[in-house]
Amino acid sequence: MPTHARIETAIAAALARHRRGRHPGRLADALEHAVLPGGARIRPTICLSVARACGDDAPELSTAAAAAIELMHCASLVHDDLPVFDDADIRRGKPSVHKAYGQALAILTGDTLIIQAYDALAEASLSDPYRGIQLSRTLTRYSGMPYGICAGQAWESEAQVDLHAYHMAKTGALFMAATTMGAIAAGEDPEPWIELGARIGEAFQVADDLRDAIMTQDELGKPVGQDEAHDRPSAVAQYGIEGATRRLDDILGGAIASIPSCPGEAQLCEMVRAQAQMIMPVSLDQRAG
Amino acid sequence: MPTHARIETAIAAALARHRRGRHPGRLADALEHAVLPGGARIRPTICLSVARACGDDAPELSTAAAAAIELMHCASLVHDDLPVFDDADIRRGKPSVHKAYGQALAILTGDTLIIQAYDALAEASLSDPYRGIQLSRTLTRYSGMPYGICAGQAWESEAQVDLHAYHMAKTGALFMAATTMGAIAAGEDPEPWIELGARIGEAFQVADDLRDAIMTQDELGKPVGQDEAHDRPSAVAQYGIEGATRRLDDILGGAIASIPSCPGEAQLCEMVRAQAQMIMPVSLDQRAG
Repeated sequence: MPTHARIETAIAAALARHRRGRHPGRLADALEHAVLPGGARIRPTICLSVARACGDDAPELSTAAAAAIELMHCASLVHDDLPVFDDADIRRGKPSVHKAYGQALAILTGDTLIIQAYDALAEASLSDPYRGIQLSRTLTRYSGMPYGICAGQAWESEAQVDLHAYHMAKTGALFMAATTMGAIAAGEDPEPWIELGARIGEAFQVADDLRDAIMTQDELGKPVGQDEAHDRPSAVAQYGIEGATRRLDDILGGAIASIPSCPGEAQLCEMVRAQAQMIMPVSLDQRAG
Repeated sequence: MPTHARIETAIAAALARHRRGRHPGRLADALEHAVLPGGARIRPTICLSVARACGDDAPELSTAAAAAIELMHCASLVHDDLPVFDDADIRRGKPSVHKAYGQALAILTGDTLIIQAYDALAEASLSDPYRGIQLSRTLTRYSGMPYGICAGQAWESEAQVDLHAYHMAKTGALFMAATTMGAIAAGEDPEPWIELGARIGEAFQVADDLRDAIMTQDELGKPVGQDEAHDRPSAVAQYGIEGATRRLDDILGGAIASIPSCPGEAQLCEMVRAQAQMIMPVSLDQRAG
């Protein structure tokens, strides 16, 4: 099954569970709104690409890992969009969950998606419990405290922000989850795969800063100019647009160089280059063209 | 180790993880505020009591199950106290998490506690992965959608509420998690233990309605008279105070009668009677005395 179909089928199966028996229908609706139709599904695609590069000998586990990462990512988007965080009315070109269903259901949507992420792993774990448990612990490492996306968001509530720890946790963490969980699902040591995830996360952060600076709301499907408006540290503020673009190229070169030797190395390099094209801001691409 | 010490030690170990390395300190503080010092720890106590009644041959698993249930319970309290839900300023006699740390950190505290609940299970699961996976799936069943505490809270956003499904999910679910996960941790079939959890949950709901109706804010450590103020359905509204008290006795009798035959049956009956004393409203006790 192609990568995209594996991800969407697994996510659809997770969502279908919520509608069994008597259930509160608006939360079920909000859960679908949060997850479907997806964005680029970059993190689960990376996870499956790494699993494939490592032989992917347990595809039900790697598919579950990919789905779990995407569900956790969607949970974080729903909560981050809330008024007390980014106060974003639009996400993926449609109303954010709290705009469409209210804040109460948005909070419960995030909570339920976190729970569902762990259940996707647990369900697939029976075929190989040891890998399954390692996947669960890795998802926790990159989602909770002290290094995961919850910690990343929480740095914004600190008087003194450790910028490196903040970016690694807020943006890098789920990319590190993607590469390491892809390796674990295929029975490989996750350690050599951390750097690839960290570098893709860094590239994504710089690309995000560039998009925020140069794209329009229509192109991006969410508000732009937020870094400047909120006086946030960003690669554009630090290096300017051209400097940040050069930095993005350097980071992606480093990401490709960091890929461990493995059977599917060449194909994985191609995937990273393709993802790089996808995260490149549209307007920048047009400027270069 | 006595029950209380097992629970507190496991919870302290989970919290200690959050402070490793560079971490956002206010979220770590908020996590401790949410979990320490605990309330009566009724759910984990029930979990360990059932495990003990079933032989408790894997105490690290039953302890982890108890801690996971309590962490999930604390997560739900933090989110339920938020202004968009119960808008409660006080919890366990001190400011609720959003009052002390703001809404952003309160949302992240709940998220992190859910994640930590699954990690408590995963960490202990290496000793018996099959029981560990079953524990994880059971925690999901009683926490997420369509039957768990998230679903329970979400029923409050429906135009038409299924009252039975609402109470079973909102109050009953984590008691059913407590009895069934206690059994699973000890290697027993969880099915016969569902009814005990459901009945304890029902008793707890009626006792909660009674407390809300007849205790003072000082006695209870949180606002009272909320059911009447918000015109919520309650056992007191339905049966009056004396009727609700008789109903509470009936339910507890049914709970004890439902206990499956097991080595520690007599001791477990004692525990249920002791818990019943604890949930009995103070003022009612004094009236009877």
